Order: sequence, then C-alpha cells, then structure tokens
Amino acid sequence: MLIIKFPFMKKHLILISWAFILYTCHAFSQQTDYVLVIHGGAGNITSERFNHEKQALYNQKLTEALTVGDSILAGNGTALDAVVAAIQVMEDCPLFNSGKGAVFNADGKNELDASIMDGKTLKAGAVAGVMIIKSPVAAARRVMDSSSHVMLAGRGAEEFARLQGLEIVDPGYFYTDESWQEYLNVKAKIEKNGRKGTVGAVALDKNGNLAAATSTGGMVYKKYGRIGDSPVIGAGTYASNESCAVSCTGHGEFFIRNAVAFDVSARMLYLGESVEKAAGYIINEKLKNQGASGGLIALDKDGNFCMPFNTPGMFRGYIRQGGHAEVFMFNQ
Amino acid sequence: MLIIKFPFMKKHLILISWAFILYTCHAFSQQTDYVLVIHGGAGNITSERFNHEKQALYNQKLTEALTVGDSILAGNGTALDAVVAAIQVMEDCPLFNSGKGAVFNADGKNELDASIMDGKTLKAGAVAGVMIIKSPVAAARRVMDSSSHVMLAGRGAEEFARLQGLEIVDPGYFYTDESWQEYLNVKAKIEKNGRKGTVGAVALDKNGNLAAATSTGGMVYKKYGRIGDSPVIGAGTYASNESCAVSCTGHGEFFIRNAVAFDVSARMLYLGESVEKAAGYIINEKLKNQGASGGLIALDKDGNFCMPFNTPGMFRGYIRQGGHAEVFMFNQ
Repeated sequence: MLIIKFPFMKKHLILISWAFILYTCHAFSQQTDYVLVIHGGAGNITSERFNHEKQALYNQKLTEALTVGDSILAGNGTALDAVVAAIQVMEDCPLFNSGKGAVFNADGKNELDASIMDGKTLKAGAVAGVMIIKSPVAAARRVMDSSSHVMLAGRGAEEFARLQGLEIVDPGYFYTDESWQEYLNVKAKIEKNGRKGTVGAVALDKNGNLAAATSTGGMVYKKYGRIGDSPVIGAGTYASNESCAVSCTGHGEFFIRNAVAFDVSARMLYLGESVEKAAGYIINEKLKNQGASGGLIALDKDGNFCMPFNTPGMFRGYIRQGGHAEVFMFNQ
Repeated sequence: MLIIKFPFMKKHLILISWAFILYTCHAFSQQTDYVLVIHGGAGNITSERFNHEKQALYNQKLTEALTVGDSILAGNGTALDAVVAAIQVMEDCPLFNSGKGAVFNADGKNELDASIMDGKTLKAGAVAGVMIIKSPVAAARRVMDSSSHVMLAGRGAEEFARLQGLEIVDPGYFYTDESWQEYLNVKAKIEKNGRKGTVGAVALDKNGNLAAATSTGGMVYKKYGRIGDSPVIGAGTYASNESCAVSCTGHGEFFIRNAVAFDVSARMLYLGESVEKAAGYIINEKLKNQGASGGLIALDKDGNFCMPFNTPGMFRGYIRQGGHAEVFMFNQ
C-alpha cells in the first residue's frame, strides 16, 4: 500500500487507523437492539372459554414463534426473515386462523390471505383468496421480492406461487375438525361474525430495519370472495423505517375503511405521537366509537411497541434482544 | 297554536317568526355549492400522440360525464349518485381503460376493478378482478350498500352482482379493436408497462357530503390476478367529510405502498395542509422521488380541489354549481 512506502505519511496512517476505529465503534454503537412482537388474533378470548390446558397450548406455540424469530434476529438476520419465520410457526399450527388452521368460507372451502411490508424500502407483497399455498406469508414475500406487483389474487396468485417453487398443498390440507365444526355451527346459526383471528408479526432488526406481516384465513363463513384487511397494505399491514411496523387483527371492513395500519404511521409522523398514543387512540377511541372490534401490534424504529385491543383478549407476545419470550392472552 | 290564543304573546310570535326566517336563511346559506371533478387516467398524453379529432372525442366524453353528474347534483342528488353516474359514462365508452374500454390481461382477458367511498359514513365498497359485470363501479356501490363487506373479488364478486340484479355481460362485451391491438403490441414487446389509465370522480353535493369512486381495467398484460390500487380503499380511493375525497390513477403498486388517497386526507387533518398542498406534495415530490408516475383528483369539504399529475398529461375536468364543464388533457 502507498502508505507504507512513504514514511512521511505515518501520521496519516495513524489518523486513518483512528478514523477506522472510531468508525467501527460508531457502527457498533449504531446497532439497534432487536425486538419481535407477534399476535395470534383478537376476540372473545377469556379464561372462561380457554381452560388451562388450552392456554398452555397457545402459550407454547406463541413462545415457539417468538423463539424462532429471535434466533434469526440474534444471528443478525433481517426483520423480514424474522416476521416470516414467526408467522410460519403459527401458520403451520391448527390453533390459529391462518395456514393450517384457516376457517372455512360459506362454500366450505379455505381461502387464505397474507401480506408483508419492508420498512426500509417500502416494498410490499400480498396474496388474497388463495386455496392451495401452504404458507400464504411466504407467497406474499415472493410477490414482494420476485414480482413487479404488490397484490395478487386467487388462481393467478397460486400460479405465481407454483412457478416460484413454493409448497403447494391439496385444499384438504387446511381441514381441521375444529374449523369444520365452527363452520357447521356458524352455518346453522346463519351468523356471519365468527372467529376473526389472524396472525401477525412486526420486527426491528439489529440494522434498524422494520418489517410487518399478517396472515389469515379470513372471516368464517365469508361469501363472494370477500377480502378483508389482512392482504391490504395500509389497512392490515404497514411498515416504514421512518415510523413503525404494524400488523392488525379484527373486523377487517373497519380496518380497511380507516386505513388503520397506515394511520398509526401517519399520526406518528404528522402529529408527533408516540406509537402507544397513536395505536391506542385508533383502537380504543376511533374504532371503538365506530363499533369495530380488534387489535394490533405496533413497533417503532426505536424499539418501543404496544399491543392494544378493544376485545376481551388477544393472543400476543414479544421478545427483546437478550430477553425471554413473554406471551399473553387476556386483558391484564 | 297556543301563541294565537294569547294576544300578550304577539311579541313572542314576532320573535318566533324572525327566528324562523333567520333559521331558514341560515339553512339555505348552509347549503354547499356543489362541485364534481373527474379524471380519465394519467399517462403519456401529449398533443403529438392525440390529434385534434381524438382530442375532440375525449373532450366530448369528459364533458358528457360532467354534465350527467351535474344534473344529479343540481337536482339535490347525492355526491355518491353523481360520482357513479359520471364514471358510468366513461365506463360505457371505449376511450377509457374502464368498463367497455378495459385493457386485456396476459391471458387475453379483461379483469376489471372498481371502488367507491362515502365521505359521510366512511362506508366503502370495492370489486376486484371481475370479468362479466358491465359496470364495476355499480357493483362496488352495491358491495357498500348491500353487503357487510368492503372488498369482493373474482367469481364471488360476480355472483354477488348477479344476485343484486346488476347487468351481466358476456366477456366479449369488453372487446375493442384498440385494446386488443394494444395487447398484441405489448405482448410482442414483452413490455409490462402499457396504458395505465383509469377513470375516477369526486363530488361534493349540496348537503356538504363528499364521495369518491374509481374504475379501471388495470394494467395491460397484467398477470397472476394482479390487483392494483383502484379497488383498494385508502390507496386508489378515499373520502371523508372531515377532509376530502380522492381518486387516483397511475402506477398502482406505488399508490398502494404509499396509501396515497388516505395520505391526502391524513396530511390535511394532521398537518393542516390545504388539499392542493397535500396532494401536490404526494404526487410531485413523494411519488416522483420514488420514480412513480400518476396523478389524482382531490376535492375538499369546502369545494376546493386540485388535479395534480407527474405525467405528460391526464384526462380531467370539473364543473361547479352554476358553471360550465371544463375539461383538460395536457399539462397547462
């Protein structure tokens, strides 16, 4: 190197070394403490309806989802990879209304939705009304990464997922006794508002990048190709490194009309509200006053987060760098 | 009336009469001057590409759409009825990429999207990927008025429209030589960014209610059931009596990721910006900096409106109470 050849540049070499050390320290000090927050749906979740055995099952699966995401973030993985992995644990499990546990629509079929957003680039992907994709959140990720579009629906989305080499399953894969029983119950009651649970995750990685993703089977006994808020960027999912990452669950029509996920970010950026204040206002005042039930998880760029809901309970949990998984179901 | 029976109350009667006259004047003065603003898509619209004959055709149809909407608003009709009627004039005409003039997707089919929102109630409706509904905006209106959902997609949305008694057409209805030629051209070039025009309308009625609606055939040669911003409430369409009504046209993926229509409202409510400042910033700075092309029409609750676009042109026009239809195509 030139520096070594010219002794009079020793001073420069020392200065460069110092600069390098300072830069390295600065780079390390700029590393963010990562955080992962998840939800498994809001609703009539009470200790009366969930016995200890069932509570233990949910706690175990929420903890597993957090642990899987944590291992990715701890290894300097991205927030995007962490939210996908955490959601896939819940998608593969029949306890939640997403993936394997998706509810049945009015035709006795499972139509799944999912979305994802990258806070760094504002890129986003979503699939709606898909029936044979094992992991809808993985498909949403591919739409974001490997297509020029944000939202793909129905058979077209399935064809895209197949071409992308994602795991395709027989529609029968999504059958579970519990979901089918729920379908029969709702059908008998001609009642449209059944279980509305959804799963979601938001993460902040060590590089300070935020990501959000949501996956759902939608509303039980839904008709006419109904699309809820989960695959709608701005309604059920939003992420921007400037503000926060958000994933919602609840009465989707209200979440669309109020552009809830984007509004959390807008209130933070334009009104200077904290993530707690913005999300709390939307869930506990704005939506509540409209008679809309649900909740959300929101995580800001500094690692502050909140998990507000206006229903009796919401499956939820979080893990911070160096911490343990903390999971909750009821209002506490 | 008691007042007449007691002469000592004459003074009261006079006071009451005055109060009534004042109230009536006040009620009349509270009536809003209505406004209707429409667009027929933004894009590479220049005088080189559109000869005088073609310009006349567009001007005539935009004027007709404004006139039809105007007659509704003049007769004390609602903003909702006016935006639907104005859009239907454009849907029924092959000049625009909506309804009859919808572009072809990669499979050589026409898949149409539309949405509508009522600023008074925040109710909204949308259909996505429909192939046999003559007027997608009418279907969106029915979703809003006659279902408990906001967004219906594909065959389910078509079944719903049929049950609602809307006009169903053979898919061949949407064939036009021009759209087919465009499809063949784009297919030959394996080029994905063809015509992106869309139609939309925003209106303020005499009762001070705002409404917005959008209708499109989407992106020419689109694949995989791609859904753009037009049927996404908050992205392509938004209305709230608190702020404004917005309808967008352009590169839909960017409009979704930026929740453009809702953001105009959010900036007005949270930052106190005028409709011109909010919409102008989003189109000419935020989206332009992201490399996203398009435009929008936005109308506030006081009748102020703007029609910004960052493309060479946008088909657009407006009419105010007691005024004439004013239509434009190019940047001026």
